[in-house]
Amino acid sequence: MTETEQQSVVVQKYGGSSVSTAQKIRAIARKICERAQSGVGLVVTVSAMGDTTDELIDLANAVTGPDLSPSPRETDTLLSTGELVSSTLMAMAIHSFGLDAVSLSGQQAGIRTNAVHGSARIAAIDTERLNRELGSGKVVIVAGFQGLGDTGDVTTLGRGASDTTAVALAVALSAEQCEIYTDVDGIYTTDPRIVPRARKLKEIGYEEMLEMASLGAKMNPRSIELAAVYGVPVLVASTFDDVPGTLIHRGEPTMELRRAVTGIAIDKNVVKIIVRGVEDRPGVAGGLLRPLADAGISVDVIVQNTSDDGTTDFTFTVGDADAQRALDLVRQQQAVKFRDATHGGELAKVSIVGTGMQNGPGYAATMFSSLAEAGVNIDMITTSEIRITCIVRRDDVPAAANALHDAFELDRAD
Amino acid sequence: MTETEQQSVVVQKYGGSSVSTAQKIRAIARKICERAQSGVGLVVTVSAMGDTTDELIDLANAVTGPDLSPSPRETDTLLSTGELVSSTLMAMAIHSFGLDAVSLSGQQAGIRTNAVHGSARIAAIDTERLNRELGSGKVVIVAGFQGLGDTGDVTTLGRGASDTTAVALAVALSAEQCEIYTDVDGIYTTDPRIVPRARKLKEIGYEEMLEMASLGAKMNPRSIELAAVYGVPVLVASTFDDVPGTLIHRGEPTMELRRAVTGIAIDKNVVKIIVRGVEDRPGVAGGLLRPLADAGISVDVIVQNTSDDGTTDFTFTVGDADAQRALDLVRQQQAVKFRDATHGGELAKVSIVGTGMQNGPGYAATMFSSLAEAGVNIDMITTSEIRITCIVRRDDVPAAANALHDAFELDRAD
Repeated sequence: MTETEQQSVVVQKYGGSSVSTAQKIRAIARKICERAQSGVGLVVTVSAMGDTTDELIDLANAVTGPDLSPSPRETDTLLSTGELVSSTLMAMAIHSFGLDAVSLSGQQAGIRTNAVHGSARIAAIDTERLNRELGSGKVVIVAGFQGLGDTGDVTTLGRGASDTTAVALAVALSAEQCEIYTDVDGIYTTDPRIVPRARKLKEIGYEEMLEMASLGAKMNPRSIELAAVYGVPVLVASTFDDVPGTLIHRGEPTMELRRAVTGIAIDKNVVKIIVRGVEDRPGVAGGLLRPLADAGISVDVIVQNTSDDGTTDFTFTVGDADAQRALDLVRQQQAVKFRDATHGGELAKVSIVGTGMQNGPGYAATMFSSLAEAGVNIDMITTSEIRITCIVRRDDVPAAANALHDAFELDRAD
Repeated sequence: MTETEQQSVVVQKYGGSSVSTAQKIRAIARKICERAQSGVGLVVTVSAMGDTTDELIDLANAVTGPDLSPSPRETDTLLSTGELVSSTLMAMAIHSFGLDAVSLSGQQAGIRTNAVHGSARIAAIDTERLNRELGSGKVVIVAGFQGLGDTGDVTTLGRGASDTTAVALAVALSAEQCEIYTDVDGIYTTDPRIVPRARKLKEIGYEEMLEMASLGAKMNPRSIELAAVYGVPVLVASTFDDVPGTLIHRGEPTMELRRAVTGIAIDKNVVKIIVRGVEDRPGVAGGLLRPLADAGISVDVIVQNTSDDGTTDFTFTVGDADAQRALDLVRQQQAVKFRDATHGGELAKVSIVGTGMQNGPGYAATMFSSLAEAGVNIDMITTSEIRITCIVRRDDVPAAANALHDAFELDRAD
């Protein structure tokens, strides 16, 4: 290769269930070696083996005792070992098939982050060593999920953030593609366990993928955002089944992306909190929700109805896991007066997603009428540019999702 | 503390069986906190939890397959994770008892080594961060067994080398003492499982400890050598039993060290290789043994007898695990002609050890006669300044060790 020729680079990522045993690591190593024969420079990010991260968290809680949380700084170094183990094992397995490979920790791969332990953000990637190892013909295995904070300590990027590592490496190395291999074989129009006629998509735009992120592929939204900003194509495909996956890329108006509705996102993990008799004055919503934001609780749908008596009812949704804590925080806050705050029952979000909806007014009407025909009551509604979401009873999810999948003809192949 | 005052520092080391569960880590953390209350600066080195290192080696072999050895460079990073896990957990456990603590990897602790993966030697310790963390009142937990090689990759110091980490830290920090906590409560006059009257020693000199290193405490000989060179006192004691241990220190002529014989070392792991009819010319021993040295096999006792026919018989001992390989290597070598090479049976070494023997001629005679009275045949003899070793049949070890323990009155307390 001459100096002016730049080797083409592909970044791959293998998730924890794909590398859960020595046998699986060997099977992936064999595929990596085949791919490397094509002459492409390969950088491979791996997650920790199987349930390693959960087991390490259990150990951290056990040594800390029930009344305290483990130190975030120590937890980060602890959890980072899971990816060190899987990346070194992957390098060894590649060696055994006769190819040269080297594992790099996040620090060695030049991944610099801020110092927010447990959810650090990548600040920069110094590609000097990555390029040196690639230039010497090695397959480079990078421990996912971790970096070096600006205080010189190991940081982690948050659960599921090996996807983010992979996309960030693809950006830094100007890779032609980032490939996410996992135990599902692509992005579906909706959850196939709920809608049997769900169909795998050949391609999807970044924005739609962000809205669908809660679907089967369970991709980390931060990684999609990063790919979108830099326009890195991301392929989501099966680790072991040799079938076409789904390509996430910038929405060129191809056949499929011209469809109005691309998919149906389902989130069965929604609880409604109702605050009644709230004094009606500016700043009330902020006052009620500030303690939740400070506690790291994401509030999703928010609805406010003014009553005749000069007070308002204020309703919002949070995830199941945060419901009790959110209710306690609202009750404890002193900034806003209200009559009572209650848990409003177990709900779900069903959304239609598609960039093609932006210019068409009929999609909401079709959605509401097909839910009505299926006997599904709509509790709350929220919309974005490319998404319409209905909050429904959790039991109604199968009826709702199947009715919408049929109404928008998502089972129809292109 | 004023600038001129230097805080007194103690380095502790806890072995793998001492930190094998979360409960044990909490129990040790509690003891560390009590000790820290006394005002001493504490640096604590930990080994990997329980069988972690063996499990990681099994994984490395499994991904590499049966025909190859895992890459030493990758193996070092892999194995280093075991100590990262135990050291972060120890820091968390200390936090939970209300004290400040920080875990440091070998790299973060400033431990610089050469690049001999798997058996790196410590080149230097940069104590800047260690002193900074100690100065801010933290208990400092250092991952044992590892360092940063001069190529920028993680290295390990060899099996059992957390002892070496601890002693090296004690040297670098001018610690008043290095404390090795383990599942035995000190150094005994001999193996108590073989000689019921074995007695725990209050103290022992470095040289004697080196000779006795194969005894109960199983201390890493490199750590003893290092302690001897720098005169660091090393206390070997039980992790959980609050009984006095054994102090290894420079041999001031105290009561106990004035004894002629300090202990009886036993090594049941000896095999004899006999090479018969070797041509008798200079360079023969070197020619026969060079291939073994190249293969990393330690040869211990060597005896050469010239026969009447102008050839010699050449006999040497190796460890059980190396016996077959040593025999193969001798048979394959081309440098020296010989009639035949055979496996000479399973033997053991029984040694009397003591600095006091240097100036007294009667110890060998007493040793040989008491073995004879016990009906033990002596196969080979070898001596050092402070040790006399007899090679005997493995079955004769109990009789030999008990006879010698009685003959030298080692059960007599001071």
